Parts: sequence; structure tokens; C-alpha cells
Amino acid sequence: MTRVVADITMSVDGYITGPNDGPGAGLGERGECLHNWVMGGPWTYAGGHPFAPQEADREVLAQAVSSIGAGIIGRRMFDVTDGWGGNPPGGPDARYFVVTHSVPSKWANVESPFTFVTDGIHSALDQARAVAEGKDVGIGGGANVIQQFLAAGLVDELRLHVAPVLLGAGKRLFDHLGDRTIELERTRVVESPYATHLYFTVGK
Amino acid sequence: MTRVVADITMSVDGYITGPNDGPGAGLGERGECLHNWVMGGPWTYAGGHPFAPQEADREVLAQAVSSIGAGIIGRRMFDVTDGWGGNPPGGPDARYFVVTHSVPSKWANVESPFTFVTDGIHSALDQARAVAEGKDVGIGGGANVIQQFLAAGLVDELRLHVAPVLLGAGKRLFDHLGDRTIELERTRVVESPYATHLYFTVGK
Repeated sequence: MTRVVADITMSVDGYITGPNDGPGAGLGERGECLHNWVMGGPWTYAGGHPFAPQEADREVLAQAVSSIGAGIIGRRMFDVTDGWGGNPPGGPDARYFVVTHSVPSKWANVESPFTFVTDGIHSALDQARAVAEGKDVGIGGGANVIQQFLAAGLVDELRLHVAPVLLGAGKRLFDHLGDRTIELERTRVVESPYATHLYFTVGK
Repeated sequence: MTRVVADITMSVDGYITGPNDGPGAGLGERGECLHNWVMGGPWTYAGGHPFAPQEADREVLAQAVSSIGAGIIGRRMFDVTDGWGGNPPGGPDARYFVVTHSVPSKWANVESPFTFVTDGIHSALDQARAVAEGKDVGIGGGANVIQQFLAAGLVDELRLHVAPVLLGAGKRLFDHLGDRTIELERTRVVESPYATHLYFTVGK
């Protein structure tokens, strides 16, 4: 059965980017350390780092890729990564639905893994389910689109990759959820030097 | 050697209380669930719940009590708990230093486990160390006093008891830390149904 899985990395103090993230600035100032677990150690956008994740982190990544049949991301994440240059995570057959107010002209008539959805998260979810072939739909971020899905009660599982750092500033994952309790059940913990991976089932 | 340990419970979205906490309102609206791990299940301030923590949680509590030789708390936490009626956690010999701007008149000339410190966190720490007899000094909260200790680089270990819930509102643990990175090293994870206990060494 297709589940909806929100999957994102945050600092211990709840930031998914450092300050001043954006197109050309990636994860923001001092934000690279969030993804040390993906890279296998400290890295920068200047490159030159080896891509060799720790065994535990590699398994977390591999399981995410194999279990997710379609992705949903927000327009800002799309712009910040510039569509990962057309090669998003998940391999050549990956399909992504980008929640946006308008289709970026650069991508309007190009064959790509991306479908631009201008009529909201429910539509994006319907379209993603339709191509997921029974696998999970992954909500990859950023914060805004995950908040929309959580507030709408549409998330079945929350996977938080908690990087061992306090950033002090940046973009918070949890904000604007509304003043009500969402109960979670922790189902799994995976530990590596660069992250504590916490898996939660989300109460409805 | 005496270490400085900040030890507090927060929700997955980083709140240490629900909204509108304060004297007479404890952990705030919907905030009781934060301490389900201490109580051994859902409880309310109305009472009537059994006090029977899960085995894993009991060990976490017992280890905290046995390792901490003196506590430091903020004035707000003191007021919210009303000094735990004079019987704070840690038993009859516990010593607490309350960081405050002024000594509460009700407690000014009363024998109690509390010493009121009006000249800041460094003074509170010096006084706590002096009576800790080589055990740890525990910073019990609330958010403001933990933020002050973290920002000053005085915390050796951060123990976060993460309750499996999104509260959506309340008092955030991490705020006002300043725009800089504090590196952490996760040293221990303890899992129970009511909390994920995360232990971090704090980089200097």
C-alpha cells in the first residue's frame, strides 16, 4: 500500500538549512554539515570530497530510494537545487511532482523527471500516487511543503535524519503547523556518527 | 570531574511546553504528554495516574538523579513548579541554584533546597560546582537558562528526552543561541515508547 513519507534532514535545533539558503547558496551558510551523513563526512559545495557514506547511512539512503515510487517537493527546493540539473535523487526513472504557483519557463517544454503541479498538495499527491506503482510517495521538502502535508493530516511516516549540530539560525522544519497536537510513534532508530535517523508513524 | 549537563524534555518539534504555560498551568495546554515518559503513560495535573515509568525510562531517571550533585534552574521554572512545594527532584539532600533577578519574598528567609542567585549564570555555576562534590551540575531548564549556558559555551553534555509528539506551539527549547554552529557528538540513545533519549557531548 502506498504510504506518504516525509523524509528530511534537520539539525538538533530543528533547522533544515543554515541562514540565507537559496538558489546558488544551497543549504545556506554553515548548512553543509546537515548532509555530512549523505556525503560520508565534512564536505563543501566547492567539491573534492569523497562520496563514501557510513554503512548505516548508506542503508538508510538505499532503503529510501528503493521504497519510494514518486517524490513531491516544493518549488523553493526545486529552485535551490535547480532541479538537481535534471538528475534528481532516485535514478533515471525517478518521478517528481513540484508544488508551485507557476511553471518555471526554463522547464516548461522540456522532457524531465519533473511535473509541475499548480493546484495544490492534494493534486500533487493524487498524481504521485498514480505513478508510484504501490511504492511510497516521498515528501522531500522543503519545510513549507512538509508543513502543508502534516497540517492536512496526509503524512503516514516522518523520517528525520537528525544531524549532530546546533545551527542557531536558518529555516525551521516545524513551524505553522497550527496549535494542535499530532501524536507520533517512534518505530525505528538508526545511529551513525553523522546522524540519528528517527522514524515515526504519524497519528491521524 | 564535574560536568555541566543540560537535561530537558522536548517534543519532536522542539517545544518544552505547550502554549500558555506558567504558574498554575504547569507544562501549558496539551503539554503533559511531554512527561509521559516520566509518569509511565498519559497523565494530567488532575492526578489519579499511576507512577510507573517504563524500565528504560526509570534507568534514565535514576542515572540522572545519581549523577547530578547540584541543579541550576531558571526563575520561571521555579515559579511554574512553585519550587516543587519545597521537594524538588533529587531527594531531600538535593541542592538547587535558581538564576533570578530578585529573590522571591515568600522564600527569602525559609530553609529550603534553593539558593537564589542574582548575579548571573557564571556565579550560579560556581556555587553549584562548590556543592556538587565532584558529581555533575544539572541545568534543568527552562529554555532561557539552557540557552544562556549553551551560548556561553558552558555545557558539556546535552540530554534531550524527545517525546513522540508535535505540539505545534509552546515554548521552544532552541532559540536565541546566536548565529553560529555548535557541534555535537551523539554518545548514547535510549529508546522507550514514550521518549527517545538522546545524549550529546557539546563541542567547545
